[in-house]
Amino acid sequence: MTTVSDDPLKKGLIDFARRLRSGHTSARAVTEAYLSRIESLNPTFDAYIHVDADQALKTATALDNLLSAGVDLGPLMGVPVAVKDLFAVAGMPVKAGSNLDLTDCIGPEGPFIKSLRQAGCVFLGKTRSIEFAAGAQNLIHPTPWNPCDMSTPRTPGGSSHGSAVAVAAGLCGFAIGSDTGGSVRQPAALCGIVGLKTSYGIWSTEGVFPLCPSMDTVGLLTASTEDASTVYAALVDDKAASGVKLTGIRLGVPEPECMDTMDADVADRFKLSLQHLQNAGVELVPITWPTEQEQQDIKAIYAGMVPADLLTTLGNERFQSQRHAIDPVAVQRLEGGVGLAATEYIRLQRMQKRLAELARDRIQGLDGIVSPTTPLTPQAVKNVSKSVATASDFVARSLSYTRAANVYDMCAMTIPIPGDPGSMPVGLQLTCASQEESKLLSLANSVSHIMLNKTRIK
Amino acid sequence: MTTVSDDPLKKGLIDFARRLRSGHTSARAVTEAYLSRIESLNPTFDAYIHVDADQALKTATALDNLLSAGVDLGPLMGVPVAVKDLFAVAGMPVKAGSNLDLTDCIGPEGPFIKSLRQAGCVFLGKTRSIEFAAGAQNLIHPTPWNPCDMSTPRTPGGSSHGSAVAVAAGLCGFAIGSDTGGSVRQPAALCGIVGLKTSYGIWSTEGVFPLCPSMDTVGLLTASTEDASTVYAALVDDKAASGVKLTGIRLGVPEPECMDTMDADVADRFKLSLQHLQNAGVELVPITWPTEQEQQDIKAIYAGMVPADLLTTLGNERFQSQRHAIDPVAVQRLEGGVGLAATEYIRLQRMQKRLAELARDRIQGLDGIVSPTTPLTPQAVKNVSKSVATASDFVARSLSYTRAANVYDMCAMTIPIPGDPGSMPVGLQLTCASQEESKLLSLANSVSHIMLNKTRIK
Repeated sequence: MTTVSDDPLKKGLIDFARRLRSGHTSARAVTEAYLSRIESLNPTFDAYIHVDADQALKTATALDNLLSAGVDLGPLMGVPVAVKDLFAVAGMPVKAGSNLDLTDCIGPEGPFIKSLRQAGCVFLGKTRSIEFAAGAQNLIHPTPWNPCDMSTPRTPGGSSHGSAVAVAAGLCGFAIGSDTGGSVRQPAALCGIVGLKTSYGIWSTEGVFPLCPSMDTVGLLTASTEDASTVYAALVDDKAASGVKLTGIRLGVPEPECMDTMDADVADRFKLSLQHLQNAGVELVPITWPTEQEQQDIKAIYAGMVPADLLTTLGNERFQSQRHAIDPVAVQRLEGGVGLAATEYIRLQRMQKRLAELARDRIQGLDGIVSPTTPLTPQAVKNVSKSVATASDFVARSLSYTRAANVYDMCAMTIPIPGDPGSMPVGLQLTCASQEESKLLSLANSVSHIMLNKTRIK
Repeated sequence: MTTVSDDPLKKGLIDFARRLRSGHTSARAVTEAYLSRIESLNPTFDAYIHVDADQALKTATALDNLLSAGVDLGPLMGVPVAVKDLFAVAGMPVKAGSNLDLTDCIGPEGPFIKSLRQAGCVFLGKTRSIEFAAGAQNLIHPTPWNPCDMSTPRTPGGSSHGSAVAVAAGLCGFAIGSDTGGSVRQPAALCGIVGLKTSYGIWSTEGVFPLCPSMDTVGLLTASTEDASTVYAALVDDKAASGVKLTGIRLGVPEPECMDTMDADVADRFKLSLQHLQNAGVELVPITWPTEQEQQDIKAIYAGMVPADLLTTLGNERFQSQRHAIDPVAVQRLEGGVGLAATEYIRLQRMQKRLAELARDRIQGLDGIVSPTTPLTPQAVKNVSKSVATASDFVARSLSYTRAANVYDMCAMTIPIPGDPGSMPVGLQLTCASQEESKLLSLANSVSHIMLNKTRIK
């Protein structure tokens, strides 16, 4: 048995960028290292459904030559990336986690993937997605192995679970996901990594299978907040967020009635992180939203509007004629769109816009909101995947803290809350106003630093 | 019998602005003159459903004092304005042309009306609207008298018919309307005045009864293209559009298969206006859109999406319990939304967005599109209002040239094509790409000049 080499980017993207330019490594070397790790470890983790080693190596070599020729594409040059199988990537298949042929719903590679190409990324392959990105657990499709527990298969959540596991298992430099109700943040939290859901519209969703076009967003899954800042800066801003002084920062904390009850482990770790924040000078402000009515409204949006959008994308004829080939959890979800009246859809769509306007007003005077990312820790797959009912319960509960940010159109991140050795991952969710990604990343960097007991940002 | 005074702004807004500042007139004087004309003539024309003389006179006096104090609010200061009864105006009732109580659907005065206040406009009152702004002819509600023929009552079209008649009859300085499928342009054309439909989103529709929130736009009805330019400039740009040299301008002309057949009068006058344009050096480029499929798609959008949106705004319960009090033409229209499936609505909504994207591509290389505004001349009210069927036919046919600009998200204007004395009004529609209002207004000024046999713009 050959020894598996270390994650070649375990010291982060900035470190790699430096080493690449000083000649201590190459795009080809790190690509080879990841391909070798994937070959050894993917049979266990099942994060990738498609790997294109040839294309990745050719690209990496060409990028090395380009850099030697003096052409520097910036901080992501030569970084091997994993892409959720919801995105069209030229030369790779795209299935959106389904057995159906969905290419007509997706179209060719879109501007977001193109921007990664222009930044010099190397595409390793496509990662497993929940079918249609609708939910967090499937029954007929395999579930990637959550690296948090190597003895018992535990669910990494979803829908971007392949990307989350690929990052957590060190099988890529960073990964791309999509988030319509928590599909980046929840698997990132359950796998103990960092996930960023951007504000609606920041990154184009052209060439991405549409789940709900009015709430779909592109997101990043990274090993650290610094890596998320580096990627975001390379693609949007020029300057990577470093950190903010936490003294005087005002963060809203939703009152207990605003959230489903959380597991004891989650409650303990969240309490601990709030203490860390207070010690660092953060002012915690109790907030009372989403109100009870709004929690019901958000549920109605995901039970009606989202399925109707998905059903329209698939077409009722394709759904009815091929429902036997669709995961039963997705079938049940889609049924919520069958027979829904246009007036009810419009009511939900308008409600979502109204809630987004409300949120813009309410966030005034606060720097952000802090909560757990999901009320539970990774569950044994065998318990969750017993039946459509257990899977659907898991979906509803595990995404119950993340959906609000999509409905309210805010940007949000999950960062791991450190725990005792061997403890299950718990994520801390930070949420900021729409378009405030730079502030969010700075906050996340600072909060991450204090939680990792590093020196405080001055 | 007292003599009715002349329209105090018949020489246009720029002339008034000059005379106001040189002390030759006052806001109070022109407001009094309009109020006197309204008192004498509105019983015939029925353009206004509400006039607030007291408030208008108080405002005018205060504006005169403000100007004396050295505070100049700009080119619209002291201009008396008529507002379609679809807009909330503080202190005035808002009915949206209906017998139902719709105040809960409209909300308080919105930013567009506020911007007119800040520009120093004097609100004379509210003008008659087709019920819910849905269409161009009602049966139970009175039809304003189209000033083009003082012997036979002819329909001014709709839905902004009160505003169109108020301008055509000289009962206001200019008027405000809304346009979701031609509701500004078509009545303006039928009344022989100028109408501007802005691009989607240029002016907020907050505080306006929503017909179809994804296509509703605010528009202007004015006596001349110069007045439209003045108002648009005062509210959006700093500089009023003057004109463009027409030599080398490329205008698309839809091929006959892209349009319903037009009345002989309309065809003749349109042909004449094309000759004028060619003589002025305009290059006329045949275009083949809307294609036949797209014409069907546009019909489907107005038969399905728009009624579903309207029905959602009213609420099915209100519609069903009060349908006896709603105009039967509107009831028939609303029926198109009852039972419509969410998936069909979503299909139409996505199609509309796709057509708007298509149009953005297709308009490249053209400065605009030219066509008649409506295929017919003003019809005798007694013929159009015989039955729901005759009224609905009139609505569908008379708006068939204007709806494309809403679906394609373009800006468009109608200007009168001069004809022999006593001839019926015929409008020329100019359409430009989204957000190209300045170009559209310049074009309209130049085309209007050449058609009025004035000197060519150099």
